[in-house]
Amino acid sequence: MAAVFEVDASSMPVNEDLAKERATASFNVTELTHILDGGPEKTRRRKELEHLVLTDPVFKNQDVLYMNKSEAYDHAVHKSVRLIQLRKKYLWSDEEAELVAQKINASEEAFTLHRDMFMPALERLCTDEQKAKWLPLAINHHIIGTYAQTELGHGTNLMKLETTATFDANNEEFVLNTPRISSMKWWPGALGKSSTHAIVLAQLTIGTRHYGLQAFIVPLRSLEDHTPLPGVHVGDIGPKLTLSHVDNGFLILKNVRIPRENMLMRNAIVTRDGKFIALKGDKSNYSTMMYVRVMITRWAFGILSRAIVTGVRYSAVRRQSSLKLSGDELQILDYQAQQYKIFPAVAAMYSIFFTSQRMTKAYNDSLPELLNGNNALLAEFHSQSSAMKALCGEISAEHVEIMRRALGGHGFMKLSGLTDLHHASLVLITIEGENTVLYQQTARYILKQLAAAVSGEHVRGTSAYLGQSFDDIRQIESEADCRDLDLLLNLYKKMAQRIVSQTGQHLQADLEAGLPKDEAWNKNMVSLVRAAKVSGKHAITSFSNVEALRNLKGTASPELVTVLSKLCCLFSLYVIETNSGHFLETEAISSVQLEIIRRAEMQLLQEIRPEAVALVDAVDVPDECLKSALGCYDGNVYERMYAAALNEPMNKSEVHPSYYKYIRGLLRGTVSKL
Amino acid sequence: MAAVFEVDASSMPVNEDLAKERATASFNVTELTHILDGGPEKTRRRKELEHLVLTDPVFKNQDVLYMNKSEAYDHAVHKSVRLIQLRKKYLWSDEEAELVAQKINASEEAFTLHRDMFMPALERLCTDEQKAKWLPLAINHHIIGTYAQTELGHGTNLMKLETTATFDANNEEFVLNTPRISSMKWWPGALGKSSTHAIVLAQLTIGTRHYGLQAFIVPLRSLEDHTPLPGVHVGDIGPKLTLSHVDNGFLILKNVRIPRENMLMRNAIVTRDGKFIALKGDKSNYSTMMYVRVMITRWAFGILSRAIVTGVRYSAVRRQSSLKLSGDELQILDYQAQQYKIFPAVAAMYSIFFTSQRMTKAYNDSLPELLNGNNALLAEFHSQSSAMKALCGEISAEHVEIMRRALGGHGFMKLSGLTDLHHASLVLITIEGENTVLYQQTARYILKQLAAAVSGEHVRGTSAYLGQSFDDIRQIESEADCRDLDLLLNLYKKMAQRIVSQTGQHLQADLEAGLPKDEAWNKNMVSLVRAAKVSGKHAITSFSNVEALRNLKGTASPELVTVLSKLCCLFSLYVIETNSGHFLETEAISSVQLEIIRRAEMQLLQEIRPEAVALVDAVDVPDECLKSALGCYDGNVYERMYAAALNEPMNKSEVHPSYYKYIRGLLRGTVSKL
Repeated sequence: MAAVFEVDASSMPVNEDLAKERATASFNVTELTHILDGGPEKTRRRKELEHLVLTDPVFKNQDVLYMNKSEAYDHAVHKSVRLIQLRKKYLWSDEEAELVAQKINASEEAFTLHRDMFMPALERLCTDEQKAKWLPLAINHHIIGTYAQTELGHGTNLMKLETTATFDANNEEFVLNTPRISSMKWWPGALGKSSTHAIVLAQLTIGTRHYGLQAFIVPLRSLEDHTPLPGVHVGDIGPKLTLSHVDNGFLILKNVRIPRENMLMRNAIVTRDGKFIALKGDKSNYSTMMYVRVMITRWAFGILSRAIVTGVRYSAVRRQSSLKLSGDELQILDYQAQQYKIFPAVAAMYSIFFTSQRMTKAYNDSLPELLNGNNALLAEFHSQSSAMKALCGEISAEHVEIMRRALGGHGFMKLSGLTDLHHASLVLITIEGENTVLYQQTARYILKQLAAAVSGEHVRGTSAYLGQSFDDIRQIESEADCRDLDLLLNLYKKMAQRIVSQTGQHLQADLEAGLPKDEAWNKNMVSLVRAAKVSGKHAITSFSNVEALRNLKGTASPELVTVLSKLCCLFSLYVIETNSGHFLETEAISSVQLEIIRRAEMQLLQEIRPEAVALVDAVDVPDECLKSALGCYDGNVYERMYAAALNEPMNKSEVHPSYYKYIRGLLRGTVSKL
Repeated sequence: MAAVFEVDASSMPVNEDLAKERATASFNVTELTHILDGGPEKTRRRKELEHLVLTDPVFKNQDVLYMNKSEAYDHAVHKSVRLIQLRKKYLWSDEEAELVAQKINASEEAFTLHRDMFMPALERLCTDEQKAKWLPLAINHHIIGTYAQTELGHGTNLMKLETTATFDANNEEFVLNTPRISSMKWWPGALGKSSTHAIVLAQLTIGTRHYGLQAFIVPLRSLEDHTPLPGVHVGDIGPKLTLSHVDNGFLILKNVRIPRENMLMRNAIVTRDGKFIALKGDKSNYSTMMYVRVMITRWAFGILSRAIVTGVRYSAVRRQSSLKLSGDELQILDYQAQQYKIFPAVAAMYSIFFTSQRMTKAYNDSLPELLNGNNALLAEFHSQSSAMKALCGEISAEHVEIMRRALGGHGFMKLSGLTDLHHASLVLITIEGENTVLYQQTARYILKQLAAAVSGEHVRGTSAYLGQSFDDIRQIESEADCRDLDLLLNLYKKMAQRIVSQTGQHLQADLEAGLPKDEAWNKNMVSLVRAAKVSGKHAITSFSNVEALRNLKGTASPELVTVLSKLCCLFSLYVIETNSGHFLETEAISSVQLEIIRRAEMQLLQEIRPEAVALVDAVDVPDECLKSALGCYDGNVYERMYAAALNEPMNKSEVHPSYYKYIRGLLRGTVSKL
């Protein structure tokens, strides 16, 4: 279909409104970009990698919107193979490979499970001998692997997984089976069509004795022709909310025999004659789980930041209505209600960035100690990473969707990019641990810390506030006080401490009244989840607002520190205001103070207004990665929308086939009678 | 792909857990079904229509999950034509046709715009002579029409629409043009491929004078071969978040000439010699807008109720984990955290049902008066319908998504049905008026009512509470008080009155301080939206809880009234608890009372537990309409999931084509070097 209006946006000047916005910022955009990348050198390297990947013909995604599931999978496989080639050629480090996968390629690959789960599991679960056999095969992609744990009937409760592995001493083999329909493996990525091998979690039986869950490496497909091996029934589980390019699969095993050596024996051994010997396991299982949760906080930043880039730029370009009877229409970014949808999201984005940065550093710093069995550190980090995975995902999803709705009707179109980001943010909530379960893990830890604090022990780490007194903290008396991050942090601490204490008291009272432990826990479950959430929000405020800014004050320019301080204040005030019940209930604030907080919040919206476009330009997402007609750097929104519509396959012919099949008869009154 | 396990769920008995649940309800399910349908006779007729439609081969939607946009559109056209045939044959009333379209067919049709917008607009905007010409053509589907208002650059601000219609007196014609890219019509349903005609909103010019927005009927496609007429550039706008079966379109007009008679002249006339004569318009434009908003509250019920049917049944079937160290796994419906996700949604569903029922009745009762120019009634109804459209949509979307997440990983699959319902609920938010704009319309009205109340006038209708005093209302002193709906309603009134008053005072203060009206409004916009929301929540509580139950007490059985009372209490308490800041801030409740409210809420969860499955069975959605492997009546969840996966097109061949293209070379190390 030929264009009636000019649609080549790349030949047009930048939208005037957007160009003006870029002149109003008080800080240096490049300085902020360097902070987000981790330094000028990292920015340079990122841009180099971006150029390399985005100029490669395989990564031009123009028609990805119109692909069906099978085509999307095919394209993802193509991209994955290409990335493997590029990585080999240019000798990318792990960090660079992650950068390319997550930031540039937006994770639209097929073999992420091989890299992120299969290979780390081999590292973790293999003996040295097994590693020597399997790792080179995996590294060189002579095999493609996945990690098959979840079953149709069990996700959260791993102990009840039903797949069986029975030792046959005569043949020195394990015989794997899927006893019931609920025992089918279901969900593993790359299982449906890609993987030649899987690490299968199964219940081990030797003779009449059961030895619990063990990991086995099971060949799934012929290395000759990729057909499933005898007894292996494998396929794709079907359409999902998103990730249509990933072949999440099901797997049924019928008397599948594997040699004894295919049990991964780092933590337990089965000898030739069928003796089971448990070994002292290390904590590396936990460390992988925590690593993934920390990674999810980074993904949360990546997804939210893209949504916000689009949201802010489009709101600067779009003009609609006016509050006066005459005169120009306003940029929608000038409406307070729009600012209230967008700027707290900008603030949340930077808060999540600082949180994920802090979590990543803490993980890297403490990994050696974690592996050496520092159980206190492990418990603290496990609790933190559970809450941060859940909270960063939820905050990201919440604000992405607020942003999508803030784009009005156009946010409903895929060309906005926001629909895909909405779905991507929902992935964060569902994967790697159900959030309500994670919050309960955090709650268990906090209550232990509370008990320690109450009994006079010195509590350290993120729950130190549980042992402190907040009776005499400074109160908000003016809007100026709302700019004092330490003061605001104390309000969070007071609020969280009281809610955690209250929850602990209720649980204790129920136990003392004679309720069995399980019933008492269930009776207080909603409170326990709330306690974990509020303490997690305290942690984000603490990490992002106070610690990060303290660190930046020594190194960043004063203008930038000023703007980031405003964002941190806004995030803190927004969380207080939108959760005002918690703060009022615990007397951390009064009704009068809430009014002051609201005024300070609205004042901050005004002050952030001229910085808004620069704050998202700093994220420095290339248009090719943003994939949004509404969010492009040049702001030529309508041209890009029209250009996108011209590519819609339905427009290839002027008259749709359904005309000849149905509509013509209807119009002529000749549709066959019933 | 052949099934390894038995998957014919229809031949299996009902899941044991689900069967047990059905025996625990205290009330008669059929009685509740009759209430939801509007009486036993309506239930009978609905079931008759369901049978008729669902046994028709065209309506078996089994493969709809795997269709691309073009196929989905084709299927929708097929269904639409079939529905037109069925309606003609069986002489369905309008109400029955809506029932079939919304409830049974879940609105997956192509020509809804023709029925819901084009024909009503003809009714509203045509002279009698024009009606005589166009309506029979439309009724008999000799033409298919759409309503082309929104443009790429303008949705909310209709006055700034840019399409032009210039009168050519010499030829007695209008010449229509799309002057700029932003003036393209964009969004109208059925515009892209289906419609032969459109009612186009355009700015009228005669000579050098402008006469504002007028409606014109413009032929788009040849009635001979469906090709676009000269000067008409029309097509599909491309992929959206959902509704892929609808050909939302764009339209560019280049010197398109239509006869003078094609201006719809009920409200204004252009004479042969180019004189413009404005006539006294009626309020029918408003009434149509309000009708659509009331209809959206019904859709909100339809979407939310389906999500809840699935959520409750699956939570009864799914067993996972246990809080004891040993013993059976619990039904997830037994966890307090799961109940807290699901039962408030059940309560919200019934509240929305009562609200939409009330709004529908009010609309029907007051329509004659509205059309006769009762401006006070119009203002009240406009304000109410704006807030209810926005709130019912938002409540529905919120709970559908909570429900989807509550299904864990399986809620991420399309076979759950929840992904589609999630998207359908998001439609409600975006269509028919941006919610932030609607809330401001409500706020304008409420502030007028407040001013009246303050100046001593007697305020009636839903804002009567603005003139009342709540200083001496009864307080919550015990959990038993939390079962007193009148008491709870007074808490809502007190809260809403104070927040509305506070908002009014702030706005007034800014005006008195000399701020221009537009700036003062913008400075208070976030507060104004909040005021509209809280007064809307008051209205829902008032309609659903108090009025509906009062009506039911005379007619329904005591057991049913008891259960519905519990749900209404739960909804009221849930709204208070999740918005506790508003209630604490306005001293409608204290912190101590909030604790009582939480206990009462948790107690209600326990009491509703044995009624839960019956409460959703009563909605009586046939499995074919529910389209959920997780929510089917028989509860054979895993069999249906496996059966669905076997239908996935990716499973048609054991080896995917991408193996031959990319994977084989990768595995063999023969991928071409860079």
